[in-house]
Parts: sequence; structure tokens; C-alpha cells
Amino acid sequence: MAQPIIQPRTLKGFRDYPPQLMIPRERLIQTAQSVFRSYGFSPLDTPALEYLEVLAGKGGEESDKQLYRFQDHGQRWVGLRFDLTVPLARFAAQNAGQLTLPFKRYHIAPVWRGENTQRGRYREFVQCDFDTVGTTTVVADIETTLVIFDLLSAIGFAGVQIRVNHRQVLTGLLEKHDLVERSGAVLRVLDKLAKVGSENVAEELVQQVGISRTACAAILELASLKGDSASVLSEMERIIGVSEVGQTGLARLNELVDAVTKAGIPTNVLRIDPSIARGLDYYTGTVFETFLNDLPDIGSVCSGGRYDDLAGLYTKQQLPGVGASLGLDRLLAAMEELGLVEERYSPADIFVPFFDSSRLGDYLWLTKELRRAGFTVAFFPEPKKIGQQLKYADRLGFPWAVIIGKDEWSAKTCQIKNMRTGDSESIEIGERGHKLIDELRIRLAEHQ
Amino acid sequence: MAQPIIQPRTLKGFRDYPPQLMIPRERLIQTAQSVFRSYGFSPLDTPALEYLEVLAGKGGEESDKQLYRFQDHGQRWVGLRFDLTVPLARFAAQNAGQLTLPFKRYHIAPVWRGENTQRGRYREFVQCDFDTVGTTTVVADIETTLVIFDLLSAIGFAGVQIRVNHRQVLTGLLEKHDLVERSGAVLRVLDKLAKVGSENVAEELVQQVGISRTACAAILELASLKGDSASVLSEMERIIGVSEVGQTGLARLNELVDAVTKAGIPTNVLRIDPSIARGLDYYTGTVFETFLNDLPDIGSVCSGGRYDDLAGLYTKQQLPGVGASLGLDRLLAAMEELGLVEERYSPADIFVPFFDSSRLGDYLWLTKELRRAGFTVAFFPEPKKIGQQLKYADRLGFPWAVIIGKDEWSAKTCQIKNMRTGDSESIEIGERGHKLIDELRIRLAEHQ
Repeated sequence: MAQPIIQPRTLKGFRDYPPQLMIPRERLIQTAQSVFRSYGFSPLDTPALEYLEVLAGKGGEESDKQLYRFQDHGQRWVGLRFDLTVPLARFAAQNAGQLTLPFKRYHIAPVWRGENTQRGRYREFVQCDFDTVGTTTVVADIETTLVIFDLLSAIGFAGVQIRVNHRQVLTGLLEKHDLVERSGAVLRVLDKLAKVGSENVAEELVQQVGISRTACAAILELASLKGDSASVLSEMERIIGVSEVGQTGLARLNELVDAVTKAGIPTNVLRIDPSIARGLDYYTGTVFETFLNDLPDIGSVCSGGRYDDLAGLYTKQQLPGVGASLGLDRLLAAMEELGLVEERYSPADIFVPFFDSSRLGDYLWLTKELRRAGFTVAFFPEPKKIGQQLKYADRLGFPWAVIIGKDEWSAKTCQIKNMRTGDSESIEIGERGHKLIDELRIRLAEHQ
Repeated sequence: MAQPIIQPRTLKGFRDYPPQLMIPRERLIQTAQSVFRSYGFSPLDTPALEYLEVLAGKGGEESDKQLYRFQDHGQRWVGLRFDLTVPLARFAAQNAGQLTLPFKRYHIAPVWRGENTQRGRYREFVQCDFDTVGTTTVVADIETTLVIFDLLSAIGFAGVQIRVNHRQVLTGLLEKHDLVERSGAVLRVLDKLAKVGSENVAEELVQQVGISRTACAAILELASLKGDSASVLSEMERIIGVSEVGQTGLARLNELVDAVTKAGIPTNVLRIDPSIARGLDYYTGTVFETFLNDLPDIGSVCSGGRYDDLAGLYTKQQLPGVGASLGLDRLLAAMEELGLVEERYSPADIFVPFFDSSRLGDYLWLTKELRRAGFTVAFFPEPKKIGQQLKYADRLGFPWAVIIGKDEWSAKTCQIKNMRTGDSESIEIGERGHKLIDELRIRLAEHQ
């Protein structure tokens, strides 16, 4: 009857999220949900599997190569989604008739890409997107900026910088130099500016994209502008000249900065950064990137932009919109690095050891009262030696223990133990546990 | 340049979860998370894709046939998980050395089965499991019962019945009739009792399983016992006789009922039901099923039980445990049927139309203050005609609107409109919006 043992392992590029990673990840997701909801964004979920034709050819050659694809039980070619934008486009096209516009949705879900794991990337990761579809108004761009700010503040980052640019500003400049049809190529090169530096970008623009030295100098002058919004805007205006499309871009940026300031966001948070290109052709208006002041090197933690046509592959109805994507796993890594994540293996704040085996009913009663008062309580299920139970509590990282032995039950008292300091104090339990509850409320509030 | 349009559609057996389904689903998931955490269960997540050998052959022939399987980019055979128990078993075996026992985890995630969709089942659905691994104590079974009760109460079901049985009781009876080696077959037949009735079960036990009429009568007598816990327990004892294993099962049931009552669960909630079989061989002790008093016909909404050996396929370390699984989608359907789900297309409680286009900054300021006070607020992004904006609000189902036009801004007042009744009242906004905030707090609390 003995079966051969199957080696328990995860696939290359995949990982488990054990409690110490899931506890902060769940907190992050709930914070994001609550910020999205506070602006009236609605949750949407779509299947992990889609028809292959819906997915293939949408994200470019790179995503196509990375697509997990196979034939299902009915011999249909299917694939695992590689982002949340394609499913949104498919959903919007499929429900175009019924959708009440503007449609504001958020979607937090895993996506799969058969990436090269040597770059330290995972093949399964959670994306966290929000979009406002069906409107061209700058108010939706403004709201996107406010959501990004509220998200990162709610998560606990003290200093963030949201850098914005507008695609039409560059288009204006390219128009002036008769280079509009090369804008895709220029954007892809410019997108590398921060990584490779301006000399290499200039080289590539001239040699590969084949633009003139003069045009290249103007592009780099534009992309290198720095300073407060007002001065950057006026410099941009000087460089792009009279181009109508460029002026439109500038006007949108101006409106955005103005409204965001009126909405009370500190002036050092929003920066106009003409070097922000975002590699994708897809964007046509405002583009966003977001950096943490304490960890600028990890790159943008929330990026996005405005597009003219979300679902052109699936419908003739034009759906403009604006949105952004929060890099959940990158943020988690950042939070760990900044000490914003407490190492916890259990979400419970209070540990109750099972000390006196004759009092099971009393322990169950008390833990119920504590839970009813809103506390998270782990009760150890076996009346083992107290030392063993406290060692378990230490390992799992509960901050507090409520210890009640035979004598305490008789005296209707308990010991509250601070598991970090080891300090312990005896207090009365009180009617329905109310004295203990009051005491715990004070202590947990103090240690928040 | 015109590309052919790709038909936007979902795969057969798959569905989108639009906002009106996702809003209650997210609420359900958050309620479950909060109940699990309140007992110190920790979240765990595992990859959707696993090595095929880890998945195959674990769930029986039926699950094997339904497995989504394919070769990945590295020619490895992989599969999509079909439940959350196999990944837990794999995880526990893989981390057997480091795991602090008892390990209490919950896992809420989608699973995939290539089922026959004619039965109205979906091929992707969310499971919601919780387990306590690494202990044999009845306290873990008791806690499982308490969690089930708290879960369903927190979700909002008034009357539930948790039916429990113990595998060893039946084993005891089978021992008496020398039928222990047929227990698997007997369980699978008994599991159909509620569906096909006792005559058909008797027929199948005698004809197919090949047991005697006497044994069959005893099994059915046991399975048909009804009444309060004390009388069912004494009847069970009479039927199984002196069997040691049967007596152990009875003793565990007795302890369970006793402790659950002491923990304050109403006595009509927990019922000993000797007909609960649960088809799986896997269970070895307590088994649970949970029914809604208002909708008994939808079947068990939360089922589970105790097992001796979670991860025998992957490790020699024996890991006993107990757990249950909440049928999220079945519950959602039940909640809809019982009117516990409000039809909402946006999670926001308050709609603010964009009435006076010169006041954008003021609208942004006020909506910010409302959000800071904890409200969920959707601001319409375009200064369209008020009728159009209110129609949008009606469609999306916001319960309240806060309307401020030119005159109101000058007078620093606003209209609070109840979108259900159409009633509207003019009130002052107040410093930092505090008068409006106080008024909204009162109204939202009244309409909870």
C-alpha cells in the first residue's frame, strides 16, 4: 500500500505566500480597495483563462512569447491573462451596450507571464489596476492623481512624488520637426533616459531612429527640464513653440497641476517631468509615474496614463479613458525595506494559552467575549506546559498574551503579558470581561 | 490599418464578475477574512499552477479528468489547482521542518475544474478554506464549529444548523458487523441518503456493496436518528454497542456538543446527524455540514471534517488536522435569494454631481473632506446637465446625492437628496464641511 512520495515543490518562477508575506499583502489590498471605493470605483473580476485570440497579439511580441497557452478539454486554444487591461478591454467591448459611462473600475488579481526568471521576476504576480473609461475630461486625470496620492498615503509612505507628463507636448515638438510618424520609436528610446543617460539616448535617436541632431537636441532639452511646475511649463512652451497639439497638452498639464493643488495635495508631490515617456504606444495624453522619496531607486510604484481607445481590437465603439496600476509586490518589498512591515506569522493580537484543562468552557467563553469586543484572539488548543505554549506564541509573534491559570480563574483575574518586553500585570477580568477588554483597548491603542 | 475585430467573449463555463456581483463578493470575502483572523488563522497563498504530478491522482478519477493541464515554456507538465487542500498539503510537506504547529491557515482563492457545464457549474470558482493542521485535540474541532457559526452570523444569516457526525461511530457499527474494510463503499452510498432516500440506499448497500440485510438495517437505523443531541447520542450508543472505536467517536461528539454549548452557541444550532457521511475517504473523525434554515434546499454551505493524514503523498511526517470550506458562490446565490444583497453598481454611498463648472476646486476640496471623514464619494467628472448626471446616479444605485450649484456655493449650503425616496433637504456645509458630515453620518446610520 505504500505509495512513492511525490516531491513537494513549487514551479520555477512561482512562490508560496506564507503568512508573514500574506499578512502585509492582504493589508495592502484592503487599503487599496478602501481607497478605490472611497472614489466610487467599482470592483470587477474576469476569468484567469481567456480565448487565446483575445489575448494574443495585444501586448506585443514580448507578451506573446510569455503567454501561457494550451488547448482545453474542448480543444479550444486558451491562455492565462498576462495583464488586467486586456480583460477590461474585452469586458468593456462585450458589454458596450449596457455599460453606464463613465465606467470606473478596479481589479486586483494575479496575472501570469512565462518570463525569464534570471531577472528576479516571478511568473505569477498580483496586479492592482484602476481605470475611468468613457470620458475624455481632465477631471478623470485629476482624480487619478488624487487616488495615487491617497493610496500611497494610506499605505503609510510619508514622501511620494507623482511625476506627470503629457504625450501631446512631445508630439507638438515632433510636429515642429516633421517627425510625428516616428513618435513611437522616439518614445521607446526616451523611456530609457533615466537608465542609460542622455548621451546614449542621443546616440540612439540619431543613429537608430534617424532624426537630425537639431531635433534630437530639442527633444533632450525638453526631456531634461526640471524645477517647479510653473517654470517647467513656461520652458516647455518656449521649446515646443506654436504647435496646437503641443499647446493642448500644456493646457491639460496646467489644469491638472492647478486642480490637484486646489484639492490640497502638497505642492512638492506633483511634478511635471517631461522625461516621463512610458514605452507603450497605447497612451495618448497624460502619463504618470510615482516614486517614493525614501526609495527612489526601486523605480515607479504606480504608473499609468490616458488613452484614446481602450478596446479597438474588439469593438468599433471608441472608449477613451485614464488609469494606473499599483505595483503591489514592488510596494511590499519597499515597505519591508523601510520597516513598515511588522514580522508577524499570525494576524491575531492576543494569545490565550490553555492553562487549566478543567476550564475549557471558561476559556471559550472569555475568548468569545474578547472577539465580540473586536479583538483577534488565538487560543492554544492543547493544555501543554505553559513554557511550550509561550514559545509557540513567541515564534508566531503575538504582541500580547492573556494568561489565566487555576488561581486566576478562582480570583477572576488574569495576567496581561507584553510579549515584546516580557512585562506582565495582573488585572480583574470583570463582568463579561469588560475590565480586561478596557485594559486591552488602552494597551493596543498605545502600541499602534 | 483597419484590423479585423476579435469577438469579445468569455470561455464556456467562465464568467465575468461585474460590480453588482463583485461588491457583495468582496464584502463576503472581507467578512470571512475578519472572522478567520479573529481566531488567529493566518492567510496563505500558493501558486495557481503546480507541477502536474503534485495535483494528479490526488483528488480521484473525476478531478483528474477535470484537471486543466499543459506543458509550460520549459516543457514541464503543469496543471491549474482544482482545490485548496492539495496546495496546503504540498506546502505543509515542503515546509514541514519550519512550520510551527498547530498551523492555522485560511486560503481564499480561485480554483479551476473542466466540469460539465450542463450541470450549471462554473469552471472557475473561488474557494474559501480554513484548517488547523498538526493537532488531534477536539478543541480544534470545537473551534472549527465556532468559526462556522461566527462566519454565517457575521454574513447575516439569522438561522443556521451545523450538523456533525463522527466517522468512528459508523466504523464502530461496521466493526460489529465485520464490515470495516467496506467502509469507503458504505460512506459513498450513505452520502446519497438525503438525495435518493433510504430505500434506494438500502438496495444499493445490499446489491452493490454486498452487505447483509441485518447490517444494512442497523446502518440505516443509525443514519436515520433525529432529535436533540442527548437523545441521539444515547440511541447511537445503543446501536453501536461496545465497540471501542465507536465509543471514542461518541465521546468526541459529546465533548464537542458540550463545549460548543458552553461557548454560548444556541442549542438549536448544533445537531448530531448520523446521516452526514461526506463522500471522501480522507476524513477520519468529526464531519461537518451547514444548512441555512431559510434555504435548506441549497444544501450545505460550509462542509469539512477531521483527517489523520493531510500530506501523506508528499511526506512521511503525519499531519493530522481539521478544517472546512465555505461555498462562497453558493452563499452569494443564497444571499441574493434572501434579499440580503442590495443591488449596487458602485460601492460609493454619496454621489456629487458636477454642477457649476467654475467651482471645480471647491468640489474637489469638499469631496476630499467627505472622504477624510470616512465616506465613499463618487464625483461626476463632467459638468453635464444635472438631469443626465442624476440619471447616471440612479443607474448606479448611489443611495445619497449631495447637490451644490452656483447659489448653494455662494450661500455655503447644499442639498442632501435621498435617491430612493427623492426627498431632498437644504443644509449648511459648515467649516471644513463639518455640518454636512454630521448630517450624512446621521442619515447613513439610520439607513443601514
